[in-house]
Amino acid sequence: MTTLSTIPSQLNVGLMGLGVVGTGVASILLNKQESLAGVTGRPVNLKKVLVRDLTRPRVIDLPDDLLTTNAEDILADPDIHILVEVMGGVDPAESYMKQGLAAGKHVVTANKEVMAKSGPELLALARKNEASLLFEASVGGGIPIVGCLMNELAANDVISIRGIINGTTNYILTAMAQHGTSFQQALGEAQSHGYAEADPTNDIEGIDAAYKLTILASLAYRSRFQPDDVYREGISKLEPQDFQYAQELGFAIKSLAIANLEEGAVQLRVYPALLPTEHMLAKVDGVYNAVEIDGSLCGQVLFHGMGAGREPTTSAVVGDLIEAARKMGAQHASPLYINEGTTNVPVRSIDDLESRYYIRLAVADRPGVLAKIAKVLGDGQISIASVLQKDVHPETESAELVITTHPAKEAPVQKALQAIAGLEEVRRVSNTLRIEE
Amino acid sequence: MTTLSTIPSQLNVGLMGLGVVGTGVASILLNKQESLAGVTGRPVNLKKVLVRDLTRPRVIDLPDDLLTTNAEDILADPDIHILVEVMGGVDPAESYMKQGLAAGKHVVTANKEVMAKSGPELLALARKNEASLLFEASVGGGIPIVGCLMNELAANDVISIRGIINGTTNYILTAMAQHGTSFQQALGEAQSHGYAEADPTNDIEGIDAAYKLTILASLAYRSRFQPDDVYREGISKLEPQDFQYAQELGFAIKSLAIANLEEGAVQLRVYPALLPTEHMLAKVDGVYNAVEIDGSLCGQVLFHGMGAGREPTTSAVVGDLIEAARKMGAQHASPLYINEGTTNVPVRSIDDLESRYYIRLAVADRPGVLAKIAKVLGDGQISIASVLQKDVHPETESAELVITTHPAKEAPVQKALQAIAGLEEVRRVSNTLRIEE
Repeated sequence: MTTLSTIPSQLNVGLMGLGVVGTGVASILLNKQESLAGVTGRPVNLKKVLVRDLTRPRVIDLPDDLLTTNAEDILADPDIHILVEVMGGVDPAESYMKQGLAAGKHVVTANKEVMAKSGPELLALARKNEASLLFEASVGGGIPIVGCLMNELAANDVISIRGIINGTTNYILTAMAQHGTSFQQALGEAQSHGYAEADPTNDIEGIDAAYKLTILASLAYRSRFQPDDVYREGISKLEPQDFQYAQELGFAIKSLAIANLEEGAVQLRVYPALLPTEHMLAKVDGVYNAVEIDGSLCGQVLFHGMGAGREPTTSAVVGDLIEAARKMGAQHASPLYINEGTTNVPVRSIDDLESRYYIRLAVADRPGVLAKIAKVLGDGQISIASVLQKDVHPETESAELVITTHPAKEAPVQKALQAIAGLEEVRRVSNTLRIEE
Repeated sequence: MTTLSTIPSQLNVGLMGLGVVGTGVASILLNKQESLAGVTGRPVNLKKVLVRDLTRPRVIDLPDDLLTTNAEDILADPDIHILVEVMGGVDPAESYMKQGLAAGKHVVTANKEVMAKSGPELLALARKNEASLLFEASVGGGIPIVGCLMNELAANDVISIRGIINGTTNYILTAMAQHGTSFQQALGEAQSHGYAEADPTNDIEGIDAAYKLTILASLAYRSRFQPDDVYREGISKLEPQDFQYAQELGFAIKSLAIANLEEGAVQLRVYPALLPTEHMLAKVDGVYNAVEIDGSLCGQVLFHGMGAGREPTTSAVVGDLIEAARKMGAQHASPLYINEGTTNVPVRSIDDLESRYYIRLAVADRPGVLAKIAKVLGDGQISIASVLQKDVHPETESAELVITTHPAKEAPVQKALQAIAGLEEVRRVSNTLRIEE
């Protein structure tokens, strides 16, 4: 436990993980020592690096005695003040973080999965041990959204968070919008550029974005949320014509992560949605990320930047490292980052969502079809805003029908869609997307 | 001087100034006590408010015994821990801030003029007295750019800052671009909406933006700059046709504040410039502000939001107040915000700028004019990128010529413009603007 009388004259860092981000962090610690000492007030020294395999070739030249395969060389060393965890995954990263915090070490992590699932427990453990736990790199790469929610924007009641926080899906959606490619083709391109992993499930199904949204919402609403609280839809059902029709209607399609407070409860959702093309978030293309905070005082503040990659993530990790270094000896003043369970803001069900909807249907090209569909919607008190009839295929006698609705509740819309799917004239409910405004 | 053993159980705030922002701050301190105590860890109490006139009617209801016209009631009260200065102007605000810091009080200010002119001295005084001096509200209103440069982005070497940091000029330029109005008409509209003052000089001549840029550059480059280091051009020379021609060429016109490091020196400038329409900053309209930081690690991060107004500025002031409260008793760990003079990054002259240029000329409608102008430019090694000939006025036999150049140095361009102005066929060099890319 660090106290005023024991602030060390030099800070020693133990780095866990030497992948893409770990290499970036090590490089800064080795090559920018003067600059780091300038902003932290004392030398910052990389003392030990945990790796899986000592003999593996590396893109960075490190002295041999810096490397270890034994986590205890970092965890049990009382002279290591700051632990930087950039291994990823839950096991053993979470256990190392816990051991580090329990020993009074400050922990800086890029681990969104651990922070989303166990953040509040880890923060409580950090406070108990008068240590800092910092995790800017877990969301938004080089965009300083975590720190801003905790600090600069702390005066605000957060009304909503809306973000594009997964670069892989945004790259795929941008390619589909700009080049009319299919989902599979765009995914293949993303994989060949290294923007998507061989198993892309975490990205394209919104799991990664749900982790990040859980972290942001927990900070914004000072309550505890879990990844399972997030309603999720992936992007794999999108087809090129969805982008074409959206554009005709004045919208872009983006995978959004949204948290908003309504009637005392927070609604958490990740799904592809239609956004007016003039909205700032609609202009976020490629691997960029953006987060818009709507605060009671600040109004809508948008952050835009690189959401992933070696350098942006290193910016976040080293920024946290500097903050931890500056805070040394000041842990008694550590703020209440996250409500650790004394109050819990309830989660609002997706069934209670009120939204406009975009519905694309394959229907028989026969008179009276639209009237039948309109009746089902009308029976559910769902009001139609616009109808496009498209792409009649003479050989199959089918047509494509695109309907947008006025604001309606999710539950009756889903019920109406089931009824519509059951109509004899309806071949397929091809896609249903929500419209954000 | 606050030490560990004397951290007070309740924080008392002295507020200086009860104008638009002061009213916002007072309202939060009075109405959000539970929430403030939640994030700071202890009650925050508004103890005294300095006003000019006790009898003036106010939009906020304050207990009579809270108000005073005597600054000493705040400055000499040892139980007031945090001084919030939102009076504006240099005198007496700066002197009050100095007295407060000298007494070990934490100071939160929205005062861009004082921070631009005397920031480094005040920060040195703050450190000497183990007090915090926080000034998020001095730049960008609700956009957390000051804190991010000091903290979250501290790992970066800043390559450049480019911002739209004066809402009044951006409102005027947006009106001119969207409605083709004249500068005078747009200014009148801005005044009637309360977005411009009766004497708009500070805004339209870039003085306000130069103060803000001085603050941002001092933080980013950890050196000391003065408002006089900023090369400034106002927006009053712009005419509706500049916006029309810029648009034809694929550009928007925005008043930009730019700091960039080149060859070891920082160039500081505020002027209206052409920006490609697809650039994020070109899309910042009306009274919105935006700042783009290009960092060595984070890449380009853009912040966009409300740059002024009661609520956004209150968000910044109260955010700083929360930070000061959280730091109580932790001043020994206060970071080196600004280099207080041990190193000084030199300022690069505008003459050394290399830029593309947009030049609009009124010329005689005669053969050979363009050849003469092109020769002058060629003699100065300035290469033409495009030429538009426009608006022949038969009655005056004059035509409008719009030339854009490839990158060229400022000094030879200005010399060539003088020579061009002296040509018999040239009636007027109507406008010269730089093109940012």
